[in-house]
Amino acid sequence: MDPKLRKEVLRKLHYGVYVATAKEGDEHAAALVTWVSQASLTPPLVMMALRKDSGIHALLRRTGRGVVHILAEGQKDLASDFFKPTRVEGDRLNGHPFRLEAGLPVLTEIPWYFQVEVREWAEGGDHAVAVAEVVAVGKNAEAEESLCLRTTGWSYGG
Amino acid sequence: MDPKLRKEVLRKLHYGVYVATAKEGDEHAAALVTWVSQASLTPPLVMMALRKDSGIHALLRRTGRGVVHILAEGQKDLASDFFKPTRVEGDRLNGHPFRLEAGLPVLTEIPWYFQVEVREWAEGGDHAVAVAEVVAVGKNAEAEESLCLRTTGWSYGG
Repeated sequence: MDPKLRKEVLRKLHYGVYVATAKEGDEHAAALVTWVSQASLTPPLVMMALRKDSGIHALLRRTGRGVVHILAEGQKDLASDFFKPTRVEGDRLNGHPFRLEAGLPVLTEIPWYFQVEVREWAEGGDHAVAVAEVVAVGKNAEAEESLCLRTTGWSYGG
Repeated sequence: MDPKLRKEVLRKLHYGVYVATAKEGDEHAAALVTWVSQASLTPPLVMMALRKDSGIHALLRRTGRGVVHILAEGQKDLASDFFKPTRVEGDRLNGHPFRLEAGLPVLTEIPWYFQVEVREWAEGGDHAVAVAEVVAVGKNAEAEESLCLRTTGWSYGG
């Protein structure tokens, strides 16, 4: 397989921009994730591929619970703060305010979010695939559209 | 969970528009699929959620092999032909020309495609999750951008 063509073709897949969070005791994880899709209507499931060497993967494996936030158009700068290692200072995660909901961090600047409970793991490759039930949804603010990865100029995959 | 809010939030996830095909003997399947994402870089894996009552799901379960086509902007009309039951007439699938590549149907009007071999299934819910390796990629034509579900005015999920 030609690696250049592989990259060209696979980067035509469409993605949003998401921040996933999890928490156990004093340990927090917050990370940008791209590979997220719904996977069932009844029950409502999503599938997420998570880097196996990431903190969010380790915490979700242990606790089975997390929150996925859906960024709005215009929140690219906010997104870029979650490329960095997770840092908690008071009521801020990587510099951004959060509150706890069902014991999980909800970033209050991001308009939409949903809480998940992992039901299954597929082994995958360098990322593991979590199939998780959406057990709660929430909205912090009104916003028109969610952020599309393509419009950020970033890409992930290939 | 408020079903209206659930729908509003989950429909903020971003998707492309894809046609998946499979074949065994004289039996063909071609279906529009929305819930597709890459799931690993090394090896290159994708994850796809497929309605359990669909022909494409049945064929992929049996054969473990298929092709995913990535539609270009402007191919909404073509996409709508794959809502319909699969119909083969000569060298056409639902009215659109195809050729065989490694024994699998490749729709020649769609610019990008990749061939997959299923490695794992997760049980999921009303859709099953296939985790599949990308074993070949191809391009039928030059095109700028792939079709984004949002721009079609359709939605899938919620």
